[in-house]
Amino acid sequence: LIDHDSIMSKMESKRKKDISAFFEPRAVAVFGSLKDGGPGYGAIKNMLDFGFAGNIYPVNPSQGEVLGLTAHYSLAEVTGPVDLAMVIIPPAAVPGVIEQCAQKGIKAVIIGTEGFAEASEDGAALQQQVVNIAHLSGLHIIGPNTIGVLNTANGLATVPYHVGYKNFLKGGIAYCGQTGLISAHSHPMGPRAYPLSKLCDFGNKCDVDEVDLLNYLSDDPETKVIVMELEDVKDGRNFVTTARRAVAKKPVLVFKPGRSQAGAKAAASHTSSLAGDDRIYEAAFKQAGILRANNWQEFWEIPRVFASQALPRGNRTAILSISGGGGIVAADTAVEAGLAIATFTDSTVRKLAKLSPRLGNNPVDYGPLTTLVDDPVAITEEIISLVLSDEAVDCGVLTIYGGVEGTAEMLCRVKQNTPKPITVWLFGPVPSVTEELYYRLASQGLATYLDLETSIKALGIAVAYSRIKSGFVHEMT
Amino acid sequence: LIDHDSIMSKMESKRKKDISAFFEPRAVAVFGSLKDGGPGYGAIKNMLDFGFAGNIYPVNPSQGEVLGLTAHYSLAEVTGPVDLAMVIIPPAAVPGVIEQCAQKGIKAVIIGTEGFAEASEDGAALQQQVVNIAHLSGLHIIGPNTIGVLNTANGLATVPYHVGYKNFLKGGIAYCGQTGLISAHSHPMGPRAYPLSKLCDFGNKCDVDEVDLLNYLSDDPETKVIVMELEDVKDGRNFVTTARRAVAKKPVLVFKPGRSQAGAKAAASHTSSLAGDDRIYEAAFKQAGILRANNWQEFWEIPRVFASQALPRGNRTAILSISGGGGIVAADTAVEAGLAIATFTDSTVRKLAKLSPRLGNNPVDYGPLTTLVDDPVAITEEIISLVLSDEAVDCGVLTIYGGVEGTAEMLCRVKQNTPKPITVWLFGPVPSVTEELYYRLASQGLATYLDLETSIKALGIAVAYSRIKSGFVHEMT
Repeated sequence: LIDHDSIMSKMESKRKKDISAFFEPRAVAVFGSLKDGGPGYGAIKNMLDFGFAGNIYPVNPSQGEVLGLTAHYSLAEVTGPVDLAMVIIPPAAVPGVIEQCAQKGIKAVIIGTEGFAEASEDGAALQQQVVNIAHLSGLHIIGPNTIGVLNTANGLATVPYHVGYKNFLKGGIAYCGQTGLISAHSHPMGPRAYPLSKLCDFGNKCDVDEVDLLNYLSDDPETKVIVMELEDVKDGRNFVTTARRAVAKKPVLVFKPGRSQAGAKAAASHTSSLAGDDRIYEAAFKQAGILRANNWQEFWEIPRVFASQALPRGNRTAILSISGGGGIVAADTAVEAGLAIATFTDSTVRKLAKLSPRLGNNPVDYGPLTTLVDDPVAITEEIISLVLSDEAVDCGVLTIYGGVEGTAEMLCRVKQNTPKPITVWLFGPVPSVTEELYYRLASQGLATYLDLETSIKALGIAVAYSRIKSGFVHEMT
Repeated sequence: LIDHDSIMSKMESKRKKDISAFFEPRAVAVFGSLKDGGPGYGAIKNMLDFGFAGNIYPVNPSQGEVLGLTAHYSLAEVTGPVDLAMVIIPPAAVPGVIEQCAQKGIKAVIIGTEGFAEASEDGAALQQQVVNIAHLSGLHIIGPNTIGVLNTANGLATVPYHVGYKNFLKGGIAYCGQTGLISAHSHPMGPRAYPLSKLCDFGNKCDVDEVDLLNYLSDDPETKVIVMELEDVKDGRNFVTTARRAVAKKPVLVFKPGRSQAGAKAAASHTSSLAGDDRIYEAAFKQAGILRANNWQEFWEIPRVFASQALPRGNRTAILSISGGGGIVAADTAVEAGLAIATFTDSTVRKLAKLSPRLGNNPVDYGPLTTLVDDPVAITEEIISLVLSDEAVDCGVLTIYGGVEGTAEMLCRVKQNTPKPITVWLFGPVPSVTEELYYRLASQGLATYLDLETSIKALGIAVAYSRIKSGFVHEMT
């Protein structure tokens, strides 16, 4: 395959779609019920909440008023340019609306509605009819059966259910998938400060698919890491070639449901996906240098490690734990995640031992010392800084108790003062207090976790990507 | 080993310790700094917060006043009976206090202080000195290096740090371990409504250990499931025999850190544990019928499945998901957890298909239907009830969106109306809203989860225990 890369690349560029209108439209037309609670209403309310930078045109024969906007009878009545349409109307009415969109010169249509290829043979035929119209008129479709897209840079959000929060943290993670579980109304992306660039639910993938998103997102300067939940891959060879090129630029992390026979069967009736043998996917992902998430928690949380810090230069890890028991679990998990427990230089060991006789080991259990000093935060900072500046340490895991004044500021200083990647596990007795500190740290770019083991697996994945990337670069020179 | 059970049992009963005073003392003496923030202050404040049913005697030469209680100069000044002492003073002063306790006739002493066998050779010698005093006087010790015990039945809590919340859900889970991470000040046991009976941090296990707790908790009527984090097991043969007897009565779930060489080394300097080869532990756990948790999340969350429902009669599982994508992941996880995807009876399939043509499969994706009806909660209840009453279904997994009015009441009715075990995965966009619903459901005895995969693994563990238990019963008859 590697030998064929240049040929593949030419073939590929021929079919490369321009899908930028899905994420950067000047204006959006919304087709769907404008009643409070209706899908058109929901999408418009979200875009107003998120401060969408372009025009929003509700289109509805009712010509009613919605959230201060007057609905247009049809798309033809809209005078300004429209680049994107969000369509959430009964399936039978969809082809007619796509025709309207084509006539208006729209290049990007999201079909939110369910009831197409995933539902029945009639639905599959209807989906094919829609695809034919799209091909003839040169427009592209995301869906059907999708909540669409989100772009934190311009406040675009097509999700047809009211999300209930208004703030996102703009950042480097792009999440894609084939389920509404990845939408802003299902997951606390805003309240948990996910550093988000873009989001795309492929739905049934009748046109735009994972290959198109890999192409687009690997060129997107705002996206630092691409994350995908994939029930199937439509064109394996193309996917591997495109993913390899993306991986040379930025990490690609994939979660692949439908591994079991029962899961694959369920995928077929969810988005008409043909999941296939997981071993084939495993081999393809490996060839492409794709990182794999094993569950939803890893899908959501691991990407944070890439969002706002450098890659580790090696796998020698320092474990700095306020809990001795936590240090042991961290050590086990680190080894299982491909990390090495760093052996500190003599100078570091001496300095640590001078602070307290039992500190010179890795994991460093600094908990007992904090109970003996007047300023536990200062001593914690001193220990963390000392260890992270050791030349024999490539990266660090911190376990932090969430209830101590000054902890957030201290951790932000630690991050500013080291070029080495770190992850932080936060714990404490009161969820609301922990959540608040978590938000502060996450919004300052610290890779913060509410689960100890995931904080360490994330560092392991960062090391794995660091190796894959240098291998790819080596291969190309 | 099985052949030797009766002999072992006799040997075992000889050394069986009465440790009930650690959990059911008439009065507690607290040795430790009474300054605000000091360990004595913290332990007393917690017991006052939790409404400890017995007397609390601070003992401190300062004879100061603390939280309305006057400190006694020494234990000899206390006139009433005292069954338990919590000792959190510098190591060198500990032997003298243990002598005082022995003279007062106290049978149970918790040594919270660090700096014993885990710290140095001198510390190990001091620990041995304390053990010798205990043996001579017939008192028992938990620790050193521990946050002690908790009993939700009487409000006893020896943790020397102020916890910050006042309410526990009394229930069937007993957590034990060798780290402060299992204490009420580290984990949101109250705010997350863990159905808790008792808690014990063994610390260095100089006297009371996992075997003593297995004996005590297997006879404790309030405890329905025993959960242990173990860095090592001191007496393997005794442990296996005792655990087998416990497992015949109730599930025992063990999380074993120190699996890796690095983890084992860290365990040695944490609680002086000798972790040893994990394969030996694996074999011993299997022989004893012990269930294994693979990480902290499983340690904390899986036990809920046992707290307030019957065991599954088989592994035929119904997956009822508001999200199609969630259903696929649930199916994969179920298969990997040893569950079978139930094949519904024809009657159920017909009734489901009548509600909506695509409902007749397992996983049941009821999400699309809820968007088409006036009362989504009522239709959800109808579908769940129909499926759970199918004779071909042994247990069920529900994925529930947390933002819909009436959901909590509906799920409580579902639980009341079925004898079959169910687990619930809750998700939603706003953590505070999700937490609130979670609390309501958990405090009504629903096995509720904030992580999809864990909700399914928990059912798998319930099925595994059901099989182990019937195997043991079969073996005994």
